[in-house]
Amino acid sequence: MIKGLDDLLKSQFNIVISDKSLLDEAFTQASYVNEHPHQNLKFYERIEFLGDAVMQLVVSEYIYRRYPKLPQGRLTRLRAAMVNEDSFASFARECHFDQYIRLGKGEEKAHARERDSLLCDIFESFIGALYLDQGVEPVRAFAAQVIFPKLDEGRFDEFFDHKTELQEVAQQHGPVAIDYELLSEDGPENDRAFKVAVKIDGETLGVGVGHSKKNAEQSAARQALVKLNQDHA
Amino acid sequence: MIKGLDDLLKSQFNIVISDKSLLDEAFTQASYVNEHPHQNLKFYERIEFLGDAVMQLVVSEYIYRRYPKLPQGRLTRLRAAMVNEDSFASFARECHFDQYIRLGKGEEKAHARERDSLLCDIFESFIGALYLDQGVEPVRAFAAQVIFPKLDEGRFDEFFDHKTELQEVAQQHGPVAIDYELLSEDGPENDRAFKVAVKIDGETLGVGVGHSKKNAEQSAARQALVKLNQDHA
Repeated sequence: MIKGLDDLLKSQFNIVISDKSLLDEAFTQASYVNEHPHQNLKFYERIEFLGDAVMQLVVSEYIYRRYPKLPQGRLTRLRAAMVNEDSFASFARECHFDQYIRLGKGEEKAHARERDSLLCDIFESFIGALYLDQGVEPVRAFAAQVIFPKLDEGRFDEFFDHKTELQEVAQQHGPVAIDYELLSEDGPENDRAFKVAVKIDGETLGVGVGHSKKNAEQSAARQALVKLNQDHA
Repeated sequence: MIKGLDDLLKSQFNIVISDKSLLDEAFTQASYVNEHPHQNLKFYERIEFLGDAVMQLVVSEYIYRRYPKLPQGRLTRLRAAMVNEDSFASFARECHFDQYIRLGKGEEKAHARERDSLLCDIFESFIGALYLDQGVEPVRAFAAQVIFPKLDEGRFDEFFDHKTELQEVAQQHGPVAIDYELLSEDGPENDRAFKVAVKIDGETLGVGVGHSKKNAEQSAARQALVKLNQDHA
């Protein structure tokens, strides 16, 4: 058993995996297995294959339901922004999974533990282990804690156009007036700060700041979307 | 409602979709929606986005469990052989889904109904509708009827090396002797027929025929795998 991993999962995510061998498999790289040939160990790759498919479904379903007007092309782009090596490696680090990977000595020396590709793999193999142990519902709960809030925090903003989205969501039941109003603009030339409000039919639903007017507008639109989604929840 | 589709699903697959609007959406192309602007119709693309992810998971989990020794790379290749436009279009035709798609007149004239890409989409959107209506279990049951048997029938053989697979499965619990024995070879030069038996530790587990020795061996190995999987079930 991997020391401390159980405690981490319990304290951070309230997850208790019954089948500890699944956890061991999910956090063990082939290099470690090769260095311990007599322990009959398994490495994470097969379980990662499954975890990847589980995560694709859980993210797809979440954005499908959350953005009922988003066309397929934009759903696909948003999913690609959420499900990729970069973001999964970040999630793995935020969950402190990097500290629990079992690596061979050579890989350890080569700083594999900091490598995005490995961290992404381990994040997926953890998902695979959780799914095999408990089914899809706990994976959804984990994603709701680790991944989905990042949407509202703007983590995927560069892939996602909040102004267009706000237009789609706000006009779901008919046309409304959406206006962006510059509230202030200050700071030195090389560090301007813009403050923008977005109003829907005259009511201010969000205020955003940014180093450009465009960024401030996107940020205001994002806020308005959070508000609209709360109102509809 | 699409005429006859309900009856087809009930009689062929024992599936009854409660929310008929999901079925309508799944079998309607954008061209049809555009020709009926006042009916407030939806087309299949969003639901297909979801169905694609559901199918990926269902197929991934099936082959993950069925081939417990298959390494990740080969799982990935096998899944790609099963989940692609060609095979999904064939499944759609075998299920007679092509007859129930709602198309615009232009698309109908352009023979869209016979187009692999559209048939593949519709197969996935049907899966999406089934999933939204009833969850993942009925999708698994549908796949067990329509997709998984094709593995034993050899539909994916060109992507799949049964001899290697047999070696992996048979030697799961230690080394065994696997021998291929040519039983007969006849027919004219340009239409030879080979008959090969595969023996594991002396016991014949499969007999295959083919136009080459290699094909006959693959076919014998496939038969042996079916037998081994039955024994382990």
